[in-house]
Amino acid sequence: MVQVKRNLKVQKYGGSSLADEEKIRTVAKKIKSALEQGYRLAVVVSANGDTTNRLISKAKGINPSPHNRELDMLVSTGEQISASLLTMALHAEDVQAISVNAYQLGIETNQAYTEAKIRKIDTRRLHRYLTDYEVLVVTGFQGITQENEITTLGRGGSDTSAVALAATLECDCEIFSDFDGIFTVDPRIMPKAKKIERITYDEMLEMACLGANVLHNRAVEIAKKYNVRLRCASTFSDKGGTRVTENYLETPIVSGLSVMKDQTHITLSNLPQGVAINKEVFTIASSKNWNIDMISIIQVNGHLDVAFTVVESVIDDVKSTYESIFEQYEGVVIRAQTGFAKISVVGLGMRTESGVASRFFAALAKGSIHVKMVTTSEIKISVLIPQEQLETAVSCLSEEFDLCSE
Amino acid sequence: MVQVKRNLKVQKYGGSSLADEEKIRTVAKKIKSALEQGYRLAVVVSANGDTTNRLISKAKGINPSPHNRELDMLVSTGEQISASLLTMALHAEDVQAISVNAYQLGIETNQAYTEAKIRKIDTRRLHRYLTDYEVLVVTGFQGITQENEITTLGRGGSDTSAVALAATLECDCEIFSDFDGIFTVDPRIMPKAKKIERITYDEMLEMACLGANVLHNRAVEIAKKYNVRLRCASTFSDKGGTRVTENYLETPIVSGLSVMKDQTHITLSNLPQGVAINKEVFTIASSKNWNIDMISIIQVNGHLDVAFTVVESVIDDVKSTYESIFEQYEGVVIRAQTGFAKISVVGLGMRTESGVASRFFAALAKGSIHVKMVTTSEIKISVLIPQEQLETAVSCLSEEFDLCSE
Repeated sequence: MVQVKRNLKVQKYGGSSLADEEKIRTVAKKIKSALEQGYRLAVVVSANGDTTNRLISKAKGINPSPHNRELDMLVSTGEQISASLLTMALHAEDVQAISVNAYQLGIETNQAYTEAKIRKIDTRRLHRYLTDYEVLVVTGFQGITQENEITTLGRGGSDTSAVALAATLECDCEIFSDFDGIFTVDPRIMPKAKKIERITYDEMLEMACLGANVLHNRAVEIAKKYNVRLRCASTFSDKGGTRVTENYLETPIVSGLSVMKDQTHITLSNLPQGVAINKEVFTIASSKNWNIDMISIIQVNGHLDVAFTVVESVIDDVKSTYESIFEQYEGVVIRAQTGFAKISVVGLGMRTESGVASRFFAALAKGSIHVKMVTTSEIKISVLIPQEQLETAVSCLSEEFDLCSE
Repeated sequence: MVQVKRNLKVQKYGGSSLADEEKIRTVAKKIKSALEQGYRLAVVVSANGDTTNRLISKAKGINPSPHNRELDMLVSTGEQISASLLTMALHAEDVQAISVNAYQLGIETNQAYTEAKIRKIDTRRLHRYLTDYEVLVVTGFQGITQENEITTLGRGGSDTSAVALAATLECDCEIFSDFDGIFTVDPRIMPKAKKIERITYDEMLEMACLGANVLHNRAVEIAKKYNVRLRCASTFSDKGGTRVTENYLETPIVSGLSVMKDQTHITLSNLPQGVAINKEVFTIASSKNWNIDMISIIQVNGHLDVAFTVVESVIDDVKSTYESIFEQYEGVVIRAQTGFAKISVVGLGMRTESGVASRFFAALAKGSIHVKMVTTSEIKISVLIPQEQLETAVSCLSEEFDLCSE
């Protein structure tokens, strides 16, 4: 039994790795070479290319507010197309493969259409397929409820499917995309960013937006919980990629730097002392699905000032909602200031190494960066800065913490 | 219970009726107007436009001989896309609708991938859905085996799905397409062909190729077996269409005329008397899936001549196969002559009315049509003629049997 498990591996191929016939054939060859190393594989696939977006735009053309249940019925077809096409390519390589969808494999989720959570995977079926076939090609991103309704897992859902499968099979998981791995800084912002060889789950979770989104947070959370060793690498090269694991010795002080653009700074000032901030500010935000970040609350002269950031696309909704909530109080002022970027450095080493914060701010000062807000966690420092200063700030910090090659 | 059944109806919409957003909205409105007449509906949909062909050509690009199981996994997505999009359009019209695929509805088939036969439909689930929703939108063309494998039903499969549902629900079935109904002659060949108001199952079965393929034979067989009343009509007009039912009074002598082009005349001559024709000629043909037609066998001077027709696309395979089988016998000659068309007239009235055959051949003689072969059934006469004479022959026969308007 142990031996079987040691020979199992989960691989996940993203949509752009399956975008055309040529790429699908390349993936099939890559899988075949893993078989030749003695593995049996469960391969998780995303919808190819822009299929999902195309289907959603078709849906919205027919009904601007489609029911989530029907949306999931619709978009889940994309992964089924990928899975069967890849299986055909594997057959052309003489590989014994079979495609299965979430229903056939028994990937059970809750009923939260478009953002369902996996409850369990039918272990018996999984092992039966892996006994009968060398490669099991699994539709990522989708699940099935107890009532046989099709669900999807939301953004990054195929990563989540892959890690959940690896957790169930107690084996390693490889996430293949167009990128060579995870980088210290998003290579689109800093082309000289270094590839990270190894990073911990915790650092990865803090750096959600690092490395051109190669790995989704929910997947990392599951990997951490079930101790699934991950490797993120390129479909189209044989470079080693990045390994995501538990803590390890010799960790760098700062592992990477992440950036979120198009942030808006919202202030609600002069709120009366008695206002139930939790209820009137944050519960609303959560029910509206605004992603509120960098919250700070200050009490001055018997009233409260609340500040936080949101993405630019929701400003109008944020303003009008709070205006109607606070119109009952006199003197409350609501301001939204656009044009900011959030920049964060993350590193497990910060926990033990002192002086990281002072190096961080000194580096920003060198570039005359105007810091609007600051938040920190045990392994992260984040600042909100004017977006036009982003490039300078990234350069200063990359140099200070040695994040670029050369 | 009887009352519920009386208010149920199955409708089927073909792929070209669902080809774009505008057409999908039109179909949704048509369904809504049926609801306003007091019906609950099970609506069967095909894949929209050329989705199925596009998917198949993608598959063949990746693997020239894809496994049928994977092909079914692939192409079945087309109907699921149609079903969810139409359901969204119904929601936009405030109709309580839900889409279900073959697996959710429990449309069980045998394991014959790409040409599966329906075994049964889960009546309990069907009635539960039709209690909870005004409209149940069902993916046509697909089924599920007892082992949860996805199958498809082959050409005309969505018609078959629709009639099978109607048989299960014991209700009427409407088949909507781009055509106003079934015509006496394919309107693409004879634009003045008359629309048939009413036709029997048996006539419809004989006229497989009539009326621009609006109705598939397997669907008619099931309709006949379970006495499901069919109506074929246009999605985009309110004309009455054609009703397909049991026998009725006042049937015309000839109901229609059907044409099959690109036929090849094959002769195997000088076969020795002792040859096992069934085994060496017809079993092979059936295992190769050649559609052999118009068979005639003649015994002359102690040897056998066999002649039949096949479609042009398989000639090479037919010739080489029989050459290798019969090379052991001396003197056997295998000939293939291309460029023929088969023309048939069909009518229940032939059973009682005498003299139809002589009128048929006299009409052909008037046009100096060269008749290569003849076959007849109780309600049909077919001849093989040179394809270049097809138009003349259709004109002569249409005039003789009053098949055109004006």
